[in-house]
Amino acid sequence: MILYITMKIDLSTIKSPADIKGFDIEKLELLSEELRAALIKKLAAHGGHVGPNLGVVEATVALHYVFDAPKDEIVFDVSHQSYVHKMLTGRIGAFIDPTRYDEVTGYSSPQESEYDLFEIGHTSTSIALATGLAKARDLKGGRQNVVAFIGDASLGGGMALEALDYAPELGSNFIVVLNDNQMSIAENHGELYNHLATLRKSNGQAENNIFKALGYEYIYVAEGNDLRSLIKAFRNAKDKDHAVLVHINTMKGMGLPVAEAHKEEFHFNGPFDPKTGSPLNPVAAESYTEMFAMKMLQLMHADKNVVTLTAGTPAAIGFSEELRKQAGSQFVDVGIAEQDAVTMTAGLAKGGARPVMGVVSTFLQRAYDQLSHDVAINNLPAVFVDFYTGVYGMNDVTHLGLFDVAMVSNIPNIKMIAAANAEEYLAMIEWAVAQTEYPVVVRTPGGSVVHAGKTPSSDFLRYDVIEKGEEVAIIGYGALLQNALKAAELLKAKGIVPTVINARNLSEVDAECLDSLKGYRHVITIDDGILNGGVGQKIAAYLAHEGVKTTCLGLKNQFMDRYNAAEVLKENGMTPEQIAQTALE
Amino acid sequence: MILYITMKIDLSTIKSPADIKGFDIEKLELLSEELRAALIKKLAAHGGHVGPNLGVVEATVALHYVFDAPKDEIVFDVSHQSYVHKMLTGRIGAFIDPTRYDEVTGYSSPQESEYDLFEIGHTSTSIALATGLAKARDLKGGRQNVVAFIGDASLGGGMALEALDYAPELGSNFIVVLNDNQMSIAENHGELYNHLATLRKSNGQAENNIFKALGYEYIYVAEGNDLRSLIKAFRNAKDKDHAVLVHINTMKGMGLPVAEAHKEEFHFNGPFDPKTGSPLNPVAAESYTEMFAMKMLQLMHADKNVVTLTAGTPAAIGFSEELRKQAGSQFVDVGIAEQDAVTMTAGLAKGGARPVMGVVSTFLQRAYDQLSHDVAINNLPAVFVDFYTGVYGMNDVTHLGLFDVAMVSNIPNIKMIAAANAEEYLAMIEWAVAQTEYPVVVRTPGGSVVHAGKTPSSDFLRYDVIEKGEEVAIIGYGALLQNALKAAELLKAKGIVPTVINARNLSEVDAECLDSLKGYRHVITIDDGILNGGVGQKIAAYLAHEGVKTTCLGLKNQFMDRYNAAEVLKENGMTPEQIAQTALE
Repeated sequence: MILYITMKIDLSTIKSPADIKGFDIEKLELLSEELRAALIKKLAAHGGHVGPNLGVVEATVALHYVFDAPKDEIVFDVSHQSYVHKMLTGRIGAFIDPTRYDEVTGYSSPQESEYDLFEIGHTSTSIALATGLAKARDLKGGRQNVVAFIGDASLGGGMALEALDYAPELGSNFIVVLNDNQMSIAENHGELYNHLATLRKSNGQAENNIFKALGYEYIYVAEGNDLRSLIKAFRNAKDKDHAVLVHINTMKGMGLPVAEAHKEEFHFNGPFDPKTGSPLNPVAAESYTEMFAMKMLQLMHADKNVVTLTAGTPAAIGFSEELRKQAGSQFVDVGIAEQDAVTMTAGLAKGGARPVMGVVSTFLQRAYDQLSHDVAINNLPAVFVDFYTGVYGMNDVTHLGLFDVAMVSNIPNIKMIAAANAEEYLAMIEWAVAQTEYPVVVRTPGGSVVHAGKTPSSDFLRYDVIEKGEEVAIIGYGALLQNALKAAELLKAKGIVPTVINARNLSEVDAECLDSLKGYRHVITIDDGILNGGVGQKIAAYLAHEGVKTTCLGLKNQFMDRYNAAEVLKENGMTPEQIAQTALE
Repeated sequence: MILYITMKIDLSTIKSPADIKGFDIEKLELLSEELRAALIKKLAAHGGHVGPNLGVVEATVALHYVFDAPKDEIVFDVSHQSYVHKMLTGRIGAFIDPTRYDEVTGYSSPQESEYDLFEIGHTSTSIALATGLAKARDLKGGRQNVVAFIGDASLGGGMALEALDYAPELGSNFIVVLNDNQMSIAENHGELYNHLATLRKSNGQAENNIFKALGYEYIYVAEGNDLRSLIKAFRNAKDKDHAVLVHINTMKGMGLPVAEAHKEEFHFNGPFDPKTGSPLNPVAAESYTEMFAMKMLQLMHADKNVVTLTAGTPAAIGFSEELRKQAGSQFVDVGIAEQDAVTMTAGLAKGGARPVMGVVSTFLQRAYDQLSHDVAINNLPAVFVDFYTGVYGMNDVTHLGLFDVAMVSNIPNIKMIAAANAEEYLAMIEWAVAQTEYPVVVRTPGGSVVHAGKTPSSDFLRYDVIEKGEEVAIIGYGALLQNALKAAELLKAKGIVPTVINARNLSEVDAECLDSLKGYRHVITIDDGILNGGVGQKIAAYLAHEGVKTTCLGLKNQFMDRYNAAEVLKENGMTPEQIAQTALE
């Protein structure tokens, strides 16, 4: 016993899974402890997905012990739980050396390692990706194992279910590891989770097994944090010539008491005190998400037909567990199922309720057709409020907020309106919920809260001329309206008084407003996102017909990972100084 | 007996479901016969969804007999099978009077009737729509029944499964009628269908019942074309305070021998001889779909790593049952699961295969996020060929091909290229499959096949200057390049020689080519789809910076139903004559 207690594994020697293949079970257990301790240390200092990774330490060790990656192909769903995988596949330095913490991204990344097959960040894609790998293998006559590792919450996403349905039809080796930690980001929703509970309670023996119904060989692991059980199950699943699903019962946040006790709060965290769980850098008192939640509570209190919806991300739209309780049956969380949520708003609106879906901009992408068909063609007055938008939105390559304007603003019937400050934001939400003529998407500004200090002009489908000048016009919206205003100040210092316009209706140009710019020397537009498909090109096309010189500023059409907003604005000529300079051309 | 044989129901007297409430079972059976006979007569003369509607005559009669629409709310999935519903809800004239056949659309339409709750045309939406109706009802304290009527193939779509998972959580009345006709448009795919077969074979008694697993009360109807059985089951499901799923076993094409025998061919038809099934207006010998299928067979034959994929619509991309057999394991049909198919291409490309997904333009909308994330962020060389695009695409409001350019061309990394004629089309497909640098979307021209009669210039990411003129430039692409060429002829007759450009790269402007237009008097762009988010606005934004007068032509941003292409082109100033006239301005 003393031997094991004093023996320490030097984690820095783990360069690849080959380095753990010779370990016996005790050493693998020790390795798991060391990995978990290192993980807690990094996460407390650096932040990241705490609960998801602590829950799968043993499962990841067992996977790499049993399977032979990269020959065997493992796809992590969302890949927010792939930290231990990174630790075991040549990237341990980024977890044990504080100076190197930022060397790895928070998701799987083929640019980092051949062990990472895809850039992933949205849920429910792993099984479909794995079916593609398996089919390619079969065409080539390969023999490797293909493994999709997916959480219980992600399994409820439509495309995961589509692929779960299809995969056994391949008729060849295919392994799904279902990591059942009994949680979504918040609590789980949907009947699938009751079914998983039934399976757990019966030690995998319950009747009406959905996985058996779909043709899978089903293996249940009651102790999903126990290495012996996991290794046995994975060995059992390996090299089979058909589809196998291994259902492992794990504990989210395992090994960190505050994370075990507060699973929702410890899904993703900034730096925190590992003992108390208290954040080291408390967030600013004021945020648009909180503003949204408070406004919705007020509107729901005033009218019981107002409903707030989310697809599995209540906290991201300001609804903590406490606020969800206050909202009661007027708060709907359908689980990670954006398509269902968006189309449910259409049914709610048709049924006379006033649905408001709060949604992270990048996740709204998952329901384009539902937005276009069920909401827009039917012209139903559903309301969507999208978050983390534009240059100041999230900056992981898989969570960018740069594409929502191009995606939404070109769908007919929908009015997409962008708020530039707190006053406009709250007024827009009130207006959107009160009206019943249009589907409306309200774009929450990215970044910190800005106060205009005055009531916004009220017709949100018209542009707002904030300053009336001459010869030069600067047109912006959302968070970047500030850059237009600052550029105007710089120009005024040089004796030029430009017109500054808030182009808050992103769906259609305000022809009357733009007509007043005929004869202008130079019009500059600023898109808060990619240039292509945005507001500037619509304005330019309108003005080009009149031959008005127009310069469209916006982001180059590319995916960027973990970018710096200030740098990106500079690269694209969008700082106030650069805008003023361009205006002088 | 003689009584019933001679007794005829005057269908024209059926104005609403109330008119059949007093019928006894024999009269309901007679009604069903009459409805079916009328339906066959209309469909043979007019065309439409034959098999789906013939299969649900009895189920629809039973629904309206048992439930009290429009108070009870019935949502038909896809709604291509809602003809009998229309016949029973005030629209019988459009089915029995040949002069009025075109009075109704082929899908449910609230503009036609209060019995139709939504414009629907894409699959798998009914359950989510119904959850919205049910939730609105519950908030208001209503008591009506909410029914989602969905086919077995549509149930495999991800959003149907999301909603199926969520609905029982409402904890209130909710009825799903699963119309199991054992077919998709073509044969079914996915394990769910084996499961349904198991349920049918066991008369609903099989273990591992997926619907019971998800918390539904499950009712099986073995004879889904028998009114007594259906009425009994629907009565049993009615007014319950929880979720019930009624699984009905129906026969697609029932009552028309050729449709019963050839279920795939008789899913949707133009006018046909009801005895032989032969089409009355055989299609033109040449089509882009057939061209695509032949080219893919050739490429698959040459390289076993080339794979053609479809999400449930093989015939729409030219792959008849015979051609699918020829393609063997290199043809993949995942069922109606566009998300799964698109993301599977990413896995295939990563695994070294060469995936080519053929997809109807309007259905590609269902996988925007998968295209953006799994394919584009990963920059994998998957190929998509989209069909029924632009002004000459399908003209039902739910199947428009007007939005694909705005949707796809603004996603980074993807190269969306449009073919203007057969030679360019085949060359683009060959190039897309041969290269491994980019995800590529090849846009199939809408309308009839055009031959250029010469080999296209080969760098498809560059614009093609077809005619070099001066002062005026006309820029088009795809099927509407013809209008640019015709307008040029008209101008030449007036002594003006315009430059004509094929802007075949829809994703980015060809800066070098556009730079050659500096100093032009007037540039005209023609988008084959909506103007917003398209190619013209990108070109205008580029040229506006130089102050070049540019006029962007394209369709107004609106949903249109059953439009006439020639009229729409005229309304938007896009006929050759109008384009020439605009150029003269």
